Amino acid sequence: MASYRMLLAYDGAPFRGFARQPDQITVQGTLEDALSKVLSSEIKISGAGRTDAGVHALGQVVSFTTEKSFESQELLRRLNSICGPEIAVLEIERVSDGFDARFSAASRTYEYAILTREIHDPFSRHTAWHHPRPLDTQAMSKAASQLLGEHDFSSFGRVEPPKSPVRRIESIEVEIEGDLLIVRVTANSFLQQMVRSIVGTLIAVGEGTIDADRIGEILETRDRSAAGPVAPPHGLFLVSVDYPEELL
Amino acid sequence: MASYRMLLAYDGAPFRGFARQPDQITVQGTLEDALSKVLSSEIKISGAGRTDAGVHALGQVVSFTTEKSFESQELLRRLNSICGPEIAVLEIERVSDGFDARFSAASRTYEYAILTREIHDPFSRHTAWHHPRPLDTQAMSKAASQLLGEHDFSSFGRVEPPKSPVRRIESIEVEIEGDLLIVRVTANSFLQQMVRSIVGTLIAVGEGTIDADRIGEILETRDRSAAGPVAPPHGLFLVSVDYPEELL
Repeated sequence: MASYRMLLAYDGAPFRGFARQPDQITVQGTLEDALSKVLSSEIKISGAGRTDAGVHALGQVVSFTTEKSFESQELLRRLNSICGPEIAVLEIERVSDGFDARFSAASRTYEYAILTREIHDPFSRHTAWHHPRPLDTQAMSKAASQLLGEHDFSSFGRVEPPKSPVRRIESIEVEIEGDLLIVRVTANSFLQQMVRSIVGTLIAVGEGTIDADRIGEILETRDRSAAGPVAPPHGLFLVSVDYPEELL
Repeated sequence: MASYRMLLAYDGAPFRGFARQPDQITVQGTLEDALSKVLSSEIKISGAGRTDAGVHALGQVVSFTTEKSFESQELLRRLNSICGPEIAVLEIERVSDGFDARFSAASRTYEYAILTREIHDPFSRHTAWHHPRPLDTQAMSKAASQLLGEHDFSSFGRVEPPKSPVRRIESIEVEIEGDLLIVRVTANSFLQQMVRSIVGTLIAVGEGTIDADRIGEILETRDRSAAGPVAPPHGLFLVSVDYPEELL
């Protein structure tokens, strides 16, 4: 058995999320079916980020093991011709035995794009959330910084007990890039809807409906109703996944 | 009667081009219907660039005249709420009497985007033409420079006699921007399909199937079959329109 790592980009719009579900078009299902076809053997993949329906990826990482031998560039070409224009397989490489894209990951980085100008933009309407009213970005940065470090993030995401709701945010930034406001978050891992809950709450802070200093309090309540609304999926991108150096 | 100028961006995908046609969804038809509704008066617009089906605009200019009075920002908001997410009305302003977006224009600038990497990109698939094989960009630049100036462009576009096929290209550049190759052309005006014919021919030059020095010869034949194929519409953008300063 050999282990392989693949790097992917995908437009999340046509998928019911990453994770395979019966009778639904998912990223995992599409890739597993294509890999199984090309390698004539049932292949299961493990994905670093279980992106929700409609969420995009620029640098999703998946892994699989197989006894079949293949030429990586040829497999890459065949997968890209089978999987359709919404998914791009960017890299395939052999990795150390025991590498698992999900369980070996040290951290994930997500970006959320918000179009902040008054008039909508036909060209970013599928990749940024349009927020036409002004936002106080300094207040948003101040609020974001209170999320840094290890916390119980029950207020900002879903988790099924007995799994732990504790996560460690390593960095969180609010950046202006032209007409876009980008919220970039790196954490060891994320609860479901965690980035979108954080973004929805930061936007409430930027609008002035939640005070920047109240973020610590919201964390402490461990109650989702204390946070702001969940931002829509189409502004969110899984941009990269980091692994301990010795595994690559 | 007062004259007005509007600046527009649109995603060309859902439209059968700019120019109004019976029973077709067009940019002109959509805007005229929205303007006529808001101003309760039949409005006809004149557009600087009659973009083909599927061609995009970042800076299309249209004009209209009306006796109705209105507040520009309010009209802009109402048009943006009526016209749908594919069209954005960016500016509306009063201009000198006699200003006509089409006939007053001094020049138009178009850009054509080509994705030149081997693997497709899910996020530019509607806004750039994917050309996965290497291109000789120096040969393309050399070929492009031969199109500068005033020529009979019958080899590179359609025109209905007795209209003149003579146009003046003021600048033409081939630029590398990351994974994209951009062909940027400014001319006094363009024949139908002219930019896409030029791009298709430049790509044949970049692939080595047409020699860069043969462009002058192709111009002289005044025969469309001498040029390369017409590039698809989804890589093309009308980026800006220039007017004599005294009119604005």
